[in-house]
Amino acid sequence: MWQLHQFPLCPFSRKVRLHLAEKGVPFELWRENPWEQRDEFLDQNPAARTPVITNAERGITLVDSRAICEYFEETVDKNPLINGTAQMRAEIRRLVALFDENFFGDVTGPLLHERMKKRLVYRQSPDSRVLREAMKLAHEHLYYIDYLVDTRPWRSVDPK
Amino acid sequence: MWQLHQFPLCPFSRKVRLHLAEKGVPFELWRENPWEQRDEFLDQNPAARTPVITNAERGITLVDSRAICEYFEETVDKNPLINGTAQMRAEIRRLVALFDENFFGDVTGPLLHERMKKRLVYRQSPDSRVLREAMKLAHEHLYYIDYLVDTRPWRSVDPK
Repeated sequence: MWQLHQFPLCPFSRKVRLHLAEKGVPFELWRENPWEQRDEFLDQNPAARTPVITNAERGITLVDSRAICEYFEETVDKNPLINGTAQMRAEIRRLVALFDENFFGDVTGPLLHERMKKRLVYRQSPDSRVLREAMKLAHEHLYYIDYLVDTRPWRSVDPK
Repeated sequence: MWQLHQFPLCPFSRKVRLHLAEKGVPFELWRENPWEQRDEFLDQNPAARTPVITNAERGITLVDSRAICEYFEETVDKNPLINGTAQMRAEIRRLVALFDENFFGDVTGPLLHERMKKRLVYRQSPDSRVLREAMKLAHEHLYYIDYLVDTRPWRSVDPK
């Protein structure tokens, strides 16, 4: 059985949960608070980030949400999610990177830090200036997502 | 002909230059200063990040260094760089993510910001506190890289 070591609000853990569900791969959830830097967790992932997925019976530990998704894409045929021509697959990976890096850096990361990590870990108040800036950038990202939804025939074979 | 729109000191551009050279793919270099946010560059990549690679004859634009490397891995057989079993490929992708995200976030990103971007773009002096912290973290990363070099039989088929 696969065990997903994850934090419920971590968007990278969420992406892997959705990917595994689409692929029909059964897994158990293990709660990990990455900021605690438990020794056992650092042994699994020196970068101390969720998600990590392990399979004790098969002696497998996989780290990094994109590496995990590519692994299950390569090993499970059901519901291909990174599919089509090489050009279409590059576009899927570009969009994943856009959310993982830009949207996370501009919006999800600051919101999680101010609203969750400061409250749970540092016992501090959120910085309203950072929250306002993150919400302003969220709107810019939503404009681009609107544009993608309007102009791309999703679930079709045409990459444009 | 492929045209790589890149910034010489950008580590993601450098990774793609090395990948294309290993694969034997000919390409032209086009200098892009991503902070200028040129309209033509934003049309290619709304995230305004290097590298972007284009092929005008074939009408292809690829964005994001990992998406670009996976594309050439899928389309050019010479010198496989993401190779071996699915588990070994996941480990290669984990290490790429470790450098792209952790090493860049801790070391390369702060150094580039303080030493290069502040001088060229903002006309400010570097913050010596940030530089010291980045160099301290660089040493921690180098310890882990030493460990990997000592314990992994690189260029072998064994992923451990």
